Amino acid sequence: MPDLFHLEDFHAGQRFVTGTATMDQESIIAFAKQFDPQPFHTDPEAARQSFFGGLAASGWHTAAVSMRLIIDDTPPIAGGQIGASVELSWPRPTRPGDVLHVECEVVAVTPSRSKPDRGFITLKSLTKNQRDEVVQIQTSKILVSKRPQAAER
Amino acid sequence: MPDLFHLEDFHAGQRFVTGTATMDQESIIAFAKQFDPQPFHTDPEAARQSFFGGLAASGWHTAAVSMRLIIDDTPPIAGGQIGASVELSWPRPTRPGDVLHVECEVVAVTPSRSKPDRGFITLKSLTKNQRDEVVQIQTSKILVSKRPQAAER
Repeated sequence: MPDLFHLEDFHAGQRFVTGTATMDQESIIAFAKQFDPQPFHTDPEAARQSFFGGLAASGWHTAAVSMRLIIDDTPPIAGGQIGASVELSWPRPTRPGDVLHVECEVVAVTPSRSKPDRGFITLKSLTKNQRDEVVQIQTSKILVSKRPQAAER
Repeated sequence: MPDLFHLEDFHAGQRFVTGTATMDQESIIAFAKQFDPQPFHTDPEAARQSFFGGLAASGWHTAAVSMRLIIDDTPPIAGGQIGASVELSWPRPTRPGDVLHVECEVVAVTPSRSKPDRGFITLKSLTKNQRDEVVQIQTSKILVSKRPQAAER
């Protein structure tokens, strides 16, 4: 594998699996107090009476932790991982104590029509808990450079 | 306006504008070190040589701050703001010193087909900087309860 991945190093069907991150109650509450202060994310008592039936992480916290796992444990992209757009859904809540990992699959590699030195990969990333239940489905379009010599040809 | 919004209180075309949040360099770096540790988000010097040409906030930071503005300054939804799915894009970077606000528009109100007590609103939210440039486009599908008496009819 190359040290830094360029567009040529990706192909549809390629898979990457990250390490794990534990979502403890303290960090769930701290994130939510800063960015998504709703009782079902910040108050275990109030959360019991809510739609979620117990404390649940903000979806944005699940997304941010998933990003960290992806950055740490998928091939580094030359120039960095620059997201152009993302679709996200949260089929079930992330709970205190959940141990998350991310399973990524490259679903498309698309050279840019207008700029010959770059393209996009479409990455489908499932964030799963310790029971292999999917807590987040993410489809990202990521900008990736071609290798310099390929662009010059 | 009701204290807590139910599905009946929303209609397509409804608009909400939030207050502002300033993205200072320290918080941009702190968020990125935790969740998106890439040099263009964490190191002003390295960022100058990057695609972004200078320090840029992680898109997930812009998303999280936008969520906070929306929670603080749009009508509170009965049972809380529960996102089912989201589409996001970042047409330009968020920079240190940027002062962000969010302009939201309800683009659809859709009763659930299977569950008569609830439905979804589709909210299009533009996060803009102090020059009114769009830094994030977000389209969210949000679960909203109907008023209890309406569900019983």
